[in-house]
Amino acid sequence: MRQNSGDSEQQMQVHLDSLTKPKGSLGKLETYCVRMAKIQNRVPPVIRKKGLYVFAGDHGITAQGVSLYPPEVTYQMVINMLSGGAAANALAGGCGWELAVVDAGVAGDFPPDEELKPKHRFLRMKIGPGSGDFSRQPAMSRGELERALEAGKSIAGDAETQGYDLVAAGDMGIGNTATAAALLTGAGFTAEAMVDRGTGIDEATLERKRATIKQAVEFHNTPKSGEALLEKLGSYDMAMMAGFILGLSGRGIACVLDGFPVTAAAYMARMIAPGVSDYLFAGHSSKVRGHKPVLDAMGLDPVVSLDMHLGEGTGALIGGHVIELGVIAANEMASFAGAGVSGSSGDEEAY
Amino acid sequence: MRQNSGDSEQQMQVHLDSLTKPKGSLGKLETYCVRMAKIQNRVPPVIRKKGLYVFAGDHGITAQGVSLYPPEVTYQMVINMLSGGAAANALAGGCGWELAVVDAGVAGDFPPDEELKPKHRFLRMKIGPGSGDFSRQPAMSRGELERALEAGKSIAGDAETQGYDLVAAGDMGIGNTATAAALLTGAGFTAEAMVDRGTGIDEATLERKRATIKQAVEFHNTPKSGEALLEKLGSYDMAMMAGFILGLSGRGIACVLDGFPVTAAAYMARMIAPGVSDYLFAGHSSKVRGHKPVLDAMGLDPVVSLDMHLGEGTGALIGGHVIELGVIAANEMASFAGAGVSGSSGDEEAY
Repeated sequence: MRQNSGDSEQQMQVHLDSLTKPKGSLGKLETYCVRMAKIQNRVPPVIRKKGLYVFAGDHGITAQGVSLYPPEVTYQMVINMLSGGAAANALAGGCGWELAVVDAGVAGDFPPDEELKPKHRFLRMKIGPGSGDFSRQPAMSRGELERALEAGKSIAGDAETQGYDLVAAGDMGIGNTATAAALLTGAGFTAEAMVDRGTGIDEATLERKRATIKQAVEFHNTPKSGEALLEKLGSYDMAMMAGFILGLSGRGIACVLDGFPVTAAAYMARMIAPGVSDYLFAGHSSKVRGHKPVLDAMGLDPVVSLDMHLGEGTGALIGGHVIELGVIAANEMASFAGAGVSGSSGDEEAY
Repeated sequence: MRQNSGDSEQQMQVHLDSLTKPKGSLGKLETYCVRMAKIQNRVPPVIRKKGLYVFAGDHGITAQGVSLYPPEVTYQMVINMLSGGAAANALAGGCGWELAVVDAGVAGDFPPDEELKPKHRFLRMKIGPGSGDFSRQPAMSRGELERALEAGKSIAGDAETQGYDLVAAGDMGIGNTATAAALLTGAGFTAEAMVDRGTGIDEATLERKRATIKQAVEFHNTPKSGEALLEKLGSYDMAMMAGFILGLSGRGIACVLDGFPVTAAAYMARMIAPGVSDYLFAGHSSKVRGHKPVLDAMGLDPVVSLDMHLGEGTGALIGGHVIELGVIAANEMASFAGAGVSGSSGDEEAY
């Protein structure tokens, strides 16, 4: 039943309460289902196709030694993902999602598709070969920012064209956790909370990483607007992800966030247009220290918490699948009346 | 590569560390994968088929008014599940699991299969038409207990015959949370921690439910053995689930637990044979108050925590799917060497 009135949330809960289970017993799956009903304005909601977009880009800040991986890994991992060998490929397959890789700003030219023979769609939207080192210069020009945001919005249009009811954003790029930390520190979070030790770096390296980010934020002295932060402290992939999230507005498509970098991009999008929160889900809470406080600030409750810190949308896929299970239950379960099952004498109880 | 030596855990971690991701970045998925490798003695482990067994039974204790649902719901829900209309059907479909319903002791005779036309396998193992009211008499005779345990073990054999690498146990039966609370109180947990308010019952009903269970435990004054507890305070479905878990021993099949009743049955199995913990996973932590402390006592870390309290194996299916995703990643991802991706300069770090 398609709803045109605004009370799809209430009608969704009535529908859930009619199904053969104790009231409320699907727990958070019911909450997700109610949110999906609101986003789609449809009771029950449907998930026909799901699409993950992995935004890849390089970050000039890696020149400051903030990552343990060399920057060429970004390019190599894009090739690996297009060949089907990355974690995102395995988990997308295991959850029934389509996958598209977006070159937002990888440093390096990719061979043409005839040569690459990509197993997934490859969206060539490169704004430039890696963003600027924001410890010394703006990450990009205002014109590049506008192009990146517009490209992201066009990918939201692509999601609608593909028929996705649920999308996820994932990130791939050496230096993107440092970039995310800079954006969020610039937005008002403390560098202490946002810059993570990881397990691989020692106290001295951690202090240097924090100092680099603090100094960069002070150097640019950026106004607290999403656009200004992305221009000065962001990257092409961050800006394109923010544009993607902004572009989903009004399309009835829900978006599952992945880890710290994607959440930072979503935070920037939310600074630009606070309404984006209405169609966002937090797929997971990652092991990266700054992730949970930012999710809390956005009012997003992560679906799972599995100590992951891989990126590529892997956490979003797991959380997205749990959301989908709630929608499947709402669509497929019998009602008490339909199945001839007696109801309870109370409001809510385990069988 | 099939391992015959005992260090499959270590070899599994070496394999995981060779894959194109930062070390440890799949978080708990890696832990699950290492446990699966140990259970199967195989690196990487495989999950070819997955089977959920839902154990249904009635409980004489419902005569004491401990549940808000009438006992005939057990019979009705078995019919509903065999027709495909229950939550377990929706989630099993959404996670790619096969489903079998076990009549361990439902009060009521089911029509023959020709009439029922079940959409799933229906294992008719009824020990009796509902267990005894343990507030006044033993739940079953010693002979019935032995038959129930043996029937459960034969279902473990069925799981091997079906080719399942991963199984889940689910429960369906009005009164089974009260039965689980009695078993665990008898085992030494406090009635205060084990008997839940639910949201539907008032303080007076809660006190009555607690008193009923405390008195039953005192009445039987049962020795703290799994067998004695199941005989005096259990039920046919609880005993059969315990037998199922015991019967999986040595078969290389991992078992995902569902909520409070299934965990209580597993706790009884563990009292009988402590080694069962080696192949158990906790699919989720439910909203039922006593669940988490019992999981803690068993050393099991729940995969997800979604405030569910439905039973039927629904939480096990979600947790089981996350475990499977770890195994899929371990099988399908490329290695650094194979994909030509550069490694890191440190032990563990986000890209």
